[in-house]
Amino acid sequence: MNSALSGYTYDDPALAASGVTRGDLAALHASVLWSDADAAALRRAADILVPQTEAILDVWYGFVGANPHLVATFAGADGAPDAAYLADVRGRFGQWIADLCTRDHDARWLAYQDEIAVRHHTTKKNRTDGVDSTSAYVPLRHLIALIVPITVTIRDFLTNGESDPAAVDTMYHAWMKAVTLSVALWARPYSPTTW
Amino acid sequence: MNSALSGYTYDDPALAASGVTRGDLAALHASVLWSDADAAALRRAADILVPQTEAILDVWYGFVGANPHLVATFAGADGAPDAAYLADVRGRFGQWIADLCTRDHDARWLAYQDEIAVRHHTTKKNRTDGVDSTSAYVPLRHLIALIVPITVTIRDFLTNGESDPAAVDTMYHAWMKAVTLSVALWARPYSPTTW
Repeated sequence: MNSALSGYTYDDPALAASGVTRGDLAALHASVLWSDADAAALRRAADILVPQTEAILDVWYGFVGANPHLVATFAGADGAPDAAYLADVRGRFGQWIADLCTRDHDARWLAYQDEIAVRHHTTKKNRTDGVDSTSAYVPLRHLIALIVPITVTIRDFLTNGESDPAAVDTMYHAWMKAVTLSVALWARPYSPTTW
Repeated sequence: MNSALSGYTYDDPALAASGVTRGDLAALHASVLWSDADAAALRRAADILVPQTEAILDVWYGFVGANPHLVATFAGADGAPDAAYLADVRGRFGQWIADLCTRDHDARWLAYQDEIAVRHHTTKKNRTDGVDSTSAYVPLRHLIALIVPITVTIRDFLTNGESDPAAVDTMYHAWMKAVTLSVALWARPYSPTTW
């Protein structure tokens, strides 16, 4: 956790409680086949991934930068990528790797998923970083589609720190479940009445 | 393809064209890291998976049946599972396995993804099968979350027909990409203005 990280408010007591209930979360856990073994596998994964955070972000940002429809999310008022906006989001994206692997799925976690959700949606995009952007929201279709690259790129990084293929596979699938669960939660403001 | 399959209209010339453009699809393909190699891998996967369709559906329906929040989708007017509705959807779900592996991502494919989308959403749920259901839509969060079980359960079936782990892995990831891409397309009616 890095309390000095720009716009990072996970542990801010002022964060609004989530409207997602414990029952909603239990059902989502069931839908993604979540178990305590996944939580444990992600904690092991954190030991491997967190020291590689900058290298992981280099891969992800390289991918975003190579795709105009993705880098458009980080446009300033002139439509060109805003370097300060990219840098601020990068810091929080790195912290997200650690949080995804180590945070309990409790009320605070749910509250921060809501915050991440509205920061992707028209509700609040660009406000955290004070950006005047041509991008008013991250399209829902790409939020969902990015489950794939955010998942598949992590396997090589797990392999860097774990030689047993079965152990890598366990951590890899725990990561896949956690990413998909996160995107399901982040979709809420996009479809409040049919979420 | 089974033209006698109840409610299956993939090849119906009357199917409305999709509003998803070729440019939209190209961007989604890029977001899920899609390549020609994935299309080829899925065609190989079809040879393995299609003969196992009923066994795959047994696993998926077993999972749905074990989860009240999922089986609720198939409720009749009294809130209890409707056997005819379950059976009709099962037939199309089996055909979907073949279609996901073998159909080109062309205008017809996009049009039928739109049709599948509205059949999950309030727009058209229950109409195809003439069901009076207590379920008015499949919640978007579970549509997204189910990417995980629909993906991870397929690996054992691939292994049944392919002994080379690398070849299984290639087909497995092509499947993951295709499933995620499909869900991204199916999310459109849930969030038409921010899709």
